[in-house]
Amino acid sequence: MQVPAGTLLQQIDHPSDLKRFSEDDLEQISQELRQYIIDVVSVNGGHFAASLGVVELTVALHYVLNTPYDQLVWDVGHQAYGHKILTGRRDTFHTNRIHGGISGFPKRSESIYDTFGVGHSSTSISAALGMAVASQYKGETDRQHVAVIGDGSMGAGMAFEALNHAGIENSNLIVILNDNKISIDPNVGALKEYLADITTSKSYNRFRDDIAYVLNKLSSVGPDAFNIAKKIEKSIKGTLLKQSNFFEALKFRYFGPIDGHDVKHLVKVLNDLKDIPGPKLLHCVTVKGKGYALAEKDQTKWHAPGLFDKITGEIKKVVYEKPQPPKYQDVFGHTIIELAEQNSKIMGITPAMPSGSSLNLMMKAMPNRAFDVGIAEQHAVTFSAGLATQGLMPFCNIYSSFMQRAYDQVIHDVAIQKLNVVFCLDRAGLAGADGGTHHGAYDLAYMRCIPNMVVSSPMNEEELRNLMYTAQLDDAGPFVIRYPRGNGVMVDWKRPFKAIPVGKGRKICDGEELAILTIGPIGNEAVKAISQLNAEGIYPAHFDLRFVKPLDEALLHEVFNKYKKVITVEDGCIEGGMGSAVLEFMADNNYQAQVARLGIPNTVVEHGEQPELWAECGYDAASIATKVRAMEVKPNAHIIAS
Amino acid sequence: MQVPAGTLLQQIDHPSDLKRFSEDDLEQISQELRQYIIDVVSVNGGHFAASLGVVELTVALHYVLNTPYDQLVWDVGHQAYGHKILTGRRDTFHTNRIHGGISGFPKRSESIYDTFGVGHSSTSISAALGMAVASQYKGETDRQHVAVIGDGSMGAGMAFEALNHAGIENSNLIVILNDNKISIDPNVGALKEYLADITTSKSYNRFRDDIAYVLNKLSSVGPDAFNIAKKIEKSIKGTLLKQSNFFEALKFRYFGPIDGHDVKHLVKVLNDLKDIPGPKLLHCVTVKGKGYALAEKDQTKWHAPGLFDKITGEIKKVVYEKPQPPKYQDVFGHTIIELAEQNSKIMGITPAMPSGSSLNLMMKAMPNRAFDVGIAEQHAVTFSAGLATQGLMPFCNIYSSFMQRAYDQVIHDVAIQKLNVVFCLDRAGLAGADGGTHHGAYDLAYMRCIPNMVVSSPMNEEELRNLMYTAQLDDAGPFVIRYPRGNGVMVDWKRPFKAIPVGKGRKICDGEELAILTIGPIGNEAVKAISQLNAEGIYPAHFDLRFVKPLDEALLHEVFNKYKKVITVEDGCIEGGMGSAVLEFMADNNYQAQVARLGIPNTVVEHGEQPELWAECGYDAASIATKVRAMEVKPNAHIIAS
Repeated sequence: MQVPAGTLLQQIDHPSDLKRFSEDDLEQISQELRQYIIDVVSVNGGHFAASLGVVELTVALHYVLNTPYDQLVWDVGHQAYGHKILTGRRDTFHTNRIHGGISGFPKRSESIYDTFGVGHSSTSISAALGMAVASQYKGETDRQHVAVIGDGSMGAGMAFEALNHAGIENSNLIVILNDNKISIDPNVGALKEYLADITTSKSYNRFRDDIAYVLNKLSSVGPDAFNIAKKIEKSIKGTLLKQSNFFEALKFRYFGPIDGHDVKHLVKVLNDLKDIPGPKLLHCVTVKGKGYALAEKDQTKWHAPGLFDKITGEIKKVVYEKPQPPKYQDVFGHTIIELAEQNSKIMGITPAMPSGSSLNLMMKAMPNRAFDVGIAEQHAVTFSAGLATQGLMPFCNIYSSFMQRAYDQVIHDVAIQKLNVVFCLDRAGLAGADGGTHHGAYDLAYMRCIPNMVVSSPMNEEELRNLMYTAQLDDAGPFVIRYPRGNGVMVDWKRPFKAIPVGKGRKICDGEELAILTIGPIGNEAVKAISQLNAEGIYPAHFDLRFVKPLDEALLHEVFNKYKKVITVEDGCIEGGMGSAVLEFMADNNYQAQVARLGIPNTVVEHGEQPELWAECGYDAASIATKVRAMEVKPNAHIIAS
Repeated sequence: MQVPAGTLLQQIDHPSDLKRFSEDDLEQISQELRQYIIDVVSVNGGHFAASLGVVELTVALHYVLNTPYDQLVWDVGHQAYGHKILTGRRDTFHTNRIHGGISGFPKRSESIYDTFGVGHSSTSISAALGMAVASQYKGETDRQHVAVIGDGSMGAGMAFEALNHAGIENSNLIVILNDNKISIDPNVGALKEYLADITTSKSYNRFRDDIAYVLNKLSSVGPDAFNIAKKIEKSIKGTLLKQSNFFEALKFRYFGPIDGHDVKHLVKVLNDLKDIPGPKLLHCVTVKGKGYALAEKDQTKWHAPGLFDKITGEIKKVVYEKPQPPKYQDVFGHTIIELAEQNSKIMGITPAMPSGSSLNLMMKAMPNRAFDVGIAEQHAVTFSAGLATQGLMPFCNIYSSFMQRAYDQVIHDVAIQKLNVVFCLDRAGLAGADGGTHHGAYDLAYMRCIPNMVVSSPMNEEELRNLMYTAQLDDAGPFVIRYPRGNGVMVDWKRPFKAIPVGKGRKICDGEELAILTIGPIGNEAVKAISQLNAEGIYPAHFDLRFVKPLDEALLHEVFNKYKKVITVEDGCIEGGMGSAVLEFMADNNYQAQVARLGIPNTVVEHGEQPELWAECGYDAASIATKVRAMEVKPNAHIIAS
């Protein structure tokens, strides 16, 4: 839904329009921009609090910089709504995150102002440094390159790698540390505490003040003391202030902390910084959700609240007449506590997704057994491996697409050593409105090629519980359980645990001529398709493989002995995934059959609702039914006759 | 070859034996340990200089700690030879890195003293923290956990992630920073410069001395000044010393720098550290190659020099009568310079492997166009992506198994945005003596499932040159070229460039009944196999696919129209690799054929010479020939008759 913009904001189609205003107008423009975000997001949904926190910074950056010649990289991109609105997308902003609409993240194909596509955290410094070094190589000495990165993202390894390199390149790079002490959940880690220290003057600033005071007093003692005082002051200025800062240790010039909501001061500081050569870091303190009181108060809830009444702050929820199936996330969150109560070896680990994964339930119930390690997937996996060497049974919950960050650690630290780490891959398959960067498309392919791995996916909530139960039972080695974002299919999901033999699939129904093999909850689309087909007199069999590795060879022998037409369906990439595993089994066992593989095609799938995307990719219920019909399964004569 | 150990070392089978000696004996034991490493490595080969640099540290650690109850994790593990010798492997040390012998790296299955398997860098702090947190959970408050990590490894992102987490866990963790300013090549980056600063007292220590001097003088001025001086001193001690250190900012207690070759002092310091709770970092300054003058002088050359005369220092080289084919690495190194001279867009990037990859040639010839970014694969890839956004053409050279570290960056920052980054995956396939952690086994599987990727591998040096030439020609998007460690097959390799159509394979020879499809240099084993088979009257066809993605569909139609028996051969994992891609093509095009896939089986392959491992995995020339015979290709009657 389109909403009107404020009087000044209306006049800004691009940053060049913004520059025509005087500095005195910037506060009003900031307010209008903030209001526009509130107005649009409250009725259209999307990420909310992060963009409110950087309204002034966004206005100041586009006011001072010569974008798009000067290059601005937003880390993660949750916070880039203001940027989008100021750079040609004010009037399409209401299509944000909707199928066919603009992306919720900066995206190169969408705008020349979006210099780098983002979605995952902590890439901005590397990307901006690449741009800066390219400019240096080309002799574009006047060109600015700015990365805006949150304090949470700054804790991720790749941000540090980039700082470590940038510190020795003398290029035009400004890193803006957007310090709001929160990512989606409150930020954790030593660096966060350090930033709090220097921001609140607990140590560094207090000492600086002490010294100033003491030196002042000292100067009054006499000329000798005065000279001594000068000497101390010089030492302090020359070396100490420099050494006393984390970023200065990495050879950045450090500025701040400054108030990230004072737009005029931001303009002044940014103008000053442009003239200083080499790598610079500006520490801005901001408030996530700034200007919307409820969001300031509960920042996690208001990260992406869905639709809400902007006046009352009431978050709109669909009210159902009957109980609904739970989210897989909640099933995970409750089940791990149940299991941990029975098995003292179980520990929970999340890299910065306690609320998204529902591990926050365990963190609250068993604080010494559940860890949020920050945006640090690599560390999360190897830390889990370390726990496992001591006989513990870590459940490491990582979103499928974020697990790509820890691929080496899965192979090198867990699989090669065959340690008992359970990987719960949340947001597996097409993730929905977050789009291409967030789809958990590749995990079946990249996990099943690793030795010693068990790779599984439950078709429903009960299966998720039983796979979790099974994974912690014995010395199974690394055990992957992948499940999607969103709701399951069972209202009555909390059933007693049952162990599942590792590598054992399930027959959902027998059939004739053609068999459908599925893995994971997308199997429920096959169930719907079969229901439609049965009404037409077509009776495909359906098997839920449950495990892509090890494969259920007995089940597959049954399938290929009986069926010469097979359709595989997976909510994962079609190259190298479950379907390919089935083809490998066929080849190894000399079976001949006509096999069609349905899954995510080899392109970048954009954002949209999951069912929209399944249809687009050709594996929703209707597409599966169409495929069955296309494989020329004729209505079964004797059934029609009977 | 077994060599005798010194008189004290002879008596040490395990750390308990070491503890029976007095502290005064430790210097002699260190000398004997150093000599033993020199004696054995000079005649058996292996990593050399790194272990020499930590001899005293190794002796001190096992003297002070109660290993294996106390847990010691060696980062990377190049430096763990002394550890192996002191922990039950003195008499098998001569089998180091030999097929069937002990591993060149710590390995859990080899010894209870090897607490964590290593090989890739920067995992030690995460792993040791996991162990420490497990001990805390179990109430083992007396248990020590030590990670020994080099300054180069400390620059990698995951080490930072681990420090950031460890700083807020109050567990028994000692991180020993082995600061020798070199990994395999000299270390780079801002952190390295910072460490040099604090080690050489250029700023921090000098200021500390200045302050002490000034305060001293000040105290003599009078009682007022004395009080002021005390106040300054207190401020400095209370906050400044703490804030002024990178590691203290991350909430570690920092100790050092100390001389890592003073074994008695090390024993004292380690004993002191054991009693201090919480995370601690001990900064040890060591010399890589210590005690072997030539190694101290040229540390890169002596990282793993091969066999040498320990007296003269002459490195033994096999002398060939005829010119030999070059290493693929050298072909890469010379070719990228040739191409960069023609194409000003080309840039070279390596994460800390300039000599291993031969990018050092370009770094020397074109210092503003070739970058060693440190042990930072993630950053290397996204930095390359940043360069590519500016129209440059980065060649990012990363060992195949290390590329696992940057998998998300390949997908998220390069492939989704379809940026022109050329990934040269060195050490692809079975890597040889480095073993399981270093085999580039999975790249074909984990790369080919990514949209927009081109995935290729040359069968010989000329093909490598032409693929590199092709990759930089046009807007091809991300382009993978994988090639193995070691020598090629062509003496006359420096031929004029020829463009290769992307996705176009080659027919090596026609044949009858059976076709062999290969990718990469392992195709030369197929050539040998066919030569043997031809002598027996068996004539398989041979096709070099060149590209796993996109597949050469025309070529595959030709193959499956003519041949009903097919063998695929790849120096890569058999699940999800090239053979699977071929099966997918067959299924999608309704071909029926008997297909056998040869490649790395789904187990962790240990160390050995490449040909030994190819044979073990069943895809050397002899195995390929055996497989052809087993598929019942009968000698061709009319040819035998003719």
